[in-house]
Amino acid sequence: MLAGTGPLPGDIVAACEKSGREVFILAHKGVTDPDVIGSTPHEWVHLGAIERTIALLHEHRAEEVVFAGPVKRPSLTSLRLDSRALKLMAGLRKNDDASGDDKLLSMIIGELEGEGFRVVGIDSILPGILAPSGMLGALSPDDEAQADIAVACRVARAVGALDIGQAVIVQQGMVLGVEAIEGTDALLERCRDLRREGPGGVLVKLKKPHQEARVDLPTIGPETVEGARAAGLKGIAIEAGGALVIDLPAVIAAADEAGLFIIGVSSGNP
Amino acid sequence: MLAGTGPLPGDIVAACEKSGREVFILAHKGVTDPDVIGSTPHEWVHLGAIERTIALLHEHRAEEVVFAGPVKRPSLTSLRLDSRALKLMAGLRKNDDASGDDKLLSMIIGELEGEGFRVVGIDSILPGILAPSGMLGALSPDDEAQADIAVACRVARAVGALDIGQAVIVQQGMVLGVEAIEGTDALLERCRDLRREGPGGVLVKLKKPHQEARVDLPTIGPETVEGARAAGLKGIAIEAGGALVIDLPAVIAAADEAGLFIIGVSSGNP
Repeated sequence: MLAGTGPLPGDIVAACEKSGREVFILAHKGVTDPDVIGSTPHEWVHLGAIERTIALLHEHRAEEVVFAGPVKRPSLTSLRLDSRALKLMAGLRKNDDASGDDKLLSMIIGELEGEGFRVVGIDSILPGILAPSGMLGALSPDDEAQADIAVACRVARAVGALDIGQAVIVQQGMVLGVEAIEGTDALLERCRDLRREGPGGVLVKLKKPHQEARVDLPTIGPETVEGARAAGLKGIAIEAGGALVIDLPAVIAAADEAGLFIIGVSSGNP
Repeated sequence: MLAGTGPLPGDIVAACEKSGREVFILAHKGVTDPDVIGSTPHEWVHLGAIERTIALLHEHRAEEVVFAGPVKRPSLTSLRLDSRALKLMAGLRKNDDASGDDKLLSMIIGELEGEGFRVVGIDSILPGILAPSGMLGALSPDDEAQADIAVACRVARAVGALDIGQAVIVQQGMVLGVEAIEGTDALLERCRDLRREGPGGVLVKLKKPHQEARVDLPTIGPETVEGARAAGLKGIAIEAGGALVIDLPAVIAAADEAGLFIIGVSSGNP
């Protein structure tokens, strides 16, 4: 497992232990939470140490590789790129203007597959983690919220196509905020102050159109519901089959209690 | 003059007084700064009172109408729409998903022109206010900043085409932030915390592609320079001929002192 931030790496470890599957963690300095790793076999590596990452995967006879938990792209200087990573970045710089992560992640996956590892999606280990379609909790969006969802889906697809971000907040047809590098929690927090009087808005998170589905899928968890409630939103729409829900029962319970809807929508047909 | 926020309405009054031109202000409750109006002939109206606005313009025998200063779209409930405004909004709802302001402003301009008023750009009264092309101050962008400007222009055109916002901040090829309804000052403020180590980024403000050029052009002033400095940016690029610079000498002095470049770029060819 290549471990990012948040609790997902721990969930993967638990699922592997339950199924009797061996797991080895490549933890990333300044990214992975040490508490989540606990006593699971692991090594700490810099994000930019691709040569060492591949050597460790071979050494531990990895067959499948899973990316778990998001990684915010840090500055190039703090990545500590090794020679192999530099070669990858050089290819990226030539073919792309490097505005986002999609190309870079695709190239890293290509390197891993070239070494004989199978890169699998997180849902192959945690089958229930992908957002289902339709209402997840007790509530459903009213007509106004449905209109806001439609606007937000259109905007999210467009900003996603530019590899900028995955989340958009729309209220009464107005785009209150677009996520770039700050993350959804920060987006929700600023929309507390930006919200207009009257009916509340919606948060929409969609997979970016060109996004590698095995890494960095849009994610919500109980804290996303809390942030949406605090921002006065009516609910959250996520891409069915294209977004991760961390702790679905807790998300549903929090949403029902807060009076928010959670809906899994198709990106093509919101 | 239909007066929005900020100091621009005062500059228009001063220019009109200088040229001996009569000016009458329609000030907007909760929007226009009363200090900026001073003793200039004016009436206070709600933003949504289009019928009364048109009646007052006729009553004061207005020939030309100028929109001065930005107006953030408030909630529909606080707009106090009169029957004529409601009719306009109904047309808007039918033809558009109302995600932005472009359509609405175009329709308001259409109403005013239908009544026989000429709607003129602010640059017809303040000829020096449009951003010139090329370097405004002493500094110019280095290669890295030029690459960031190119990325930011591409993103700004795309989010502008969706009528979301006009400003984008890019650092080292990464989109740090995209402006929606929060405004450029708030965007700059959050990018203080989002900036990565290493070379600083750029702020780019472009006119939205479908934007009515007589209203709501992207604007910078001395406080934008201060915000950019505080966010660790290398400089600011604005659309030459498509953005307003409030107090150009002060902007240049502030940028030169802070070590920032200010450049007027073509939207088509950044």
